[in-house]
Amino acid sequence: MRFEVTILGSSSATPIYNRNPTSQVLNINERLYLVDCGEGTQQQMLRFDVRGSRIDHIFISHLHGDHYLGLVGFLSSLHLNGRKKALKLFGPLHLKEIIDLQFKYSETVLQYEIMFYPTDPKTPQIILDNEDVIVETIPLDHRIECTGFLFKEKKRLRKLIKEELERVGIPVEYYTALKKGADYTDNQGRVYKNDMLTTDSAEPKIYAYCSDTKYNERYFDQIKDADLLYHEATFLHNMLDRANETHHTTALQAAEIAVKVKAKKLLMGHFSARYKTLDDLLIEAQNVFPNTGLAIEGKTFFV
Amino acid sequence: MRFEVTILGSSSATPIYNRNPTSQVLNINERLYLVDCGEGTQQQMLRFDVRGSRIDHIFISHLHGDHYLGLVGFLSSLHLNGRKKALKLFGPLHLKEIIDLQFKYSETVLQYEIMFYPTDPKTPQIILDNEDVIVETIPLDHRIECTGFLFKEKKRLRKLIKEELERVGIPVEYYTALKKGADYTDNQGRVYKNDMLTTDSAEPKIYAYCSDTKYNERYFDQIKDADLLYHEATFLHNMLDRANETHHTTALQAAEIAVKVKAKKLLMGHFSARYKTLDDLLIEAQNVFPNTGLAIEGKTFFV
Repeated sequence: MRFEVTILGSSSATPIYNRNPTSQVLNINERLYLVDCGEGTQQQMLRFDVRGSRIDHIFISHLHGDHYLGLVGFLSSLHLNGRKKALKLFGPLHLKEIIDLQFKYSETVLQYEIMFYPTDPKTPQIILDNEDVIVETIPLDHRIECTGFLFKEKKRLRKLIKEELERVGIPVEYYTALKKGADYTDNQGRVYKNDMLTTDSAEPKIYAYCSDTKYNERYFDQIKDADLLYHEATFLHNMLDRANETHHTTALQAAEIAVKVKAKKLLMGHFSARYKTLDDLLIEAQNVFPNTGLAIEGKTFFV
Repeated sequence: MRFEVTILGSSSATPIYNRNPTSQVLNINERLYLVDCGEGTQQQMLRFDVRGSRIDHIFISHLHGDHYLGLVGFLSSLHLNGRKKALKLFGPLHLKEIIDLQFKYSETVLQYEIMFYPTDPKTPQIILDNEDVIVETIPLDHRIECTGFLFKEKKRLRKLIKEELERVGIPVEYYTALKKGADYTDNQGRVYKNDMLTTDSAEPKIYAYCSDTKYNERYFDQIKDADLLYHEATFLHNMLDRANETHHTTALQAAEIAVKVKAKKLLMGHFSARYKTLDDLLIEAQNVFPNTGLAIEGKTFFV
């Protein structure tokens, strides 16, 4: 099953050096999920061939502009491009008020429904559970209320061993039961154990999105064993005081978190405008957690 | 005196084909004035080396998102980049409410003052008058309240003929009076006529910004004799019904307006997403008004 993330923006606060404010799009089994939507996100979608019309779920972490100022423009473009299908939006309570006010004064009546689900910044909650994925909020420690999002792939059905099914002569109508793990009993009462007829599906993957936050152990348990941990790393560790003051994380801390929670891979983003190049941030993190990558616009990472 | 406009965005409604929503920056005697601020305007400034920190005046025509959604991001970046100097913002009454709401929820307290001047969508008004320029609103005919802006350069002081002043032996302290048109009388009571000592400055120029609007003669008088007329031209004339319905102008109409108001040059913008290339719009207008150009991102036009 496809489970990957494409970076649309990796800058903190302001766009700079061709880096855009935060946004990324997840492709989970050919459904697209948008996570944060900084200014210019819809332009980035055009640039990187992400079809915005395929997005049915949007998650906004918090109400700092670099994480949501592209949202009204994107919602508006969906409307202008003829969208009719409802869209689910998860984010801080007051996000809805901000959107509504702007559509009110532009006299825009959307042709599709926005189903808004306010997030709780205090307690982890399951906010989405469909056939592919379960999404939980991760309460973070930022200057204003902020949640990350944990995407836990659902365990897929078992895979049929077609040649074996044909050899035994199992009718097609039994296939769904077999995928779910049932044994097969033929006319003569012979039992065929499920693991002779199917193979297990891959272990479900976990993607954790943590932005923006101070280093704070309280969310570590929740992101344990993430296959891919996206974590903000706004500063180098020589700026730790500034990181603490602004409730951000350093590259070294992000790497230490990856070690502590036993992540398989770390993806760092939300880079301060003071870093024209990102090599130093990467080296600082890789010294502690080698399997670290940089969230570069347009790059896709497999979970 | 420098008087020029640089296009930052020329798309209507949605960004597409590398065209951004509407924005342009005027340089009038080395002061920068921002006119509309669609999503991604600050990124366009970075792209085209426009120093946003030099902008002290912002004009927003109306509250359709493609004309202002980049504003909160831009104001926020000025703040983050350390701006302390007050900024004047002219736009529809409710713009302030939209900005305030977003800064409230991001808990942003700007380090500089925004002096907000609501525009009156019904009656032309002088909204700015400084040493370089007078700015008037142009009430337009759009689906929601919308004003264009008329920038009338101030008549500059007369230019001194330095050699003549030295020959006559006029003391420096008289120069300002001479620039303003005074004659000079020497110790012997001899009168030197001003036009022997100075030359007239260039005729002041007029820039008219008309976006978005239906063709409506009521604003034609106001934009008469513009040296450069920016006019929206969303559609080809074969889409006249659609233009009327959405309160927009066709390229042919924009050219007819340029003829009627005796503009020296026409600059068309706000192109519909249906036009991948703009040649047909240009040809349609040039057939009626040859001195027509296209508002292309990054291009600068002299007024």
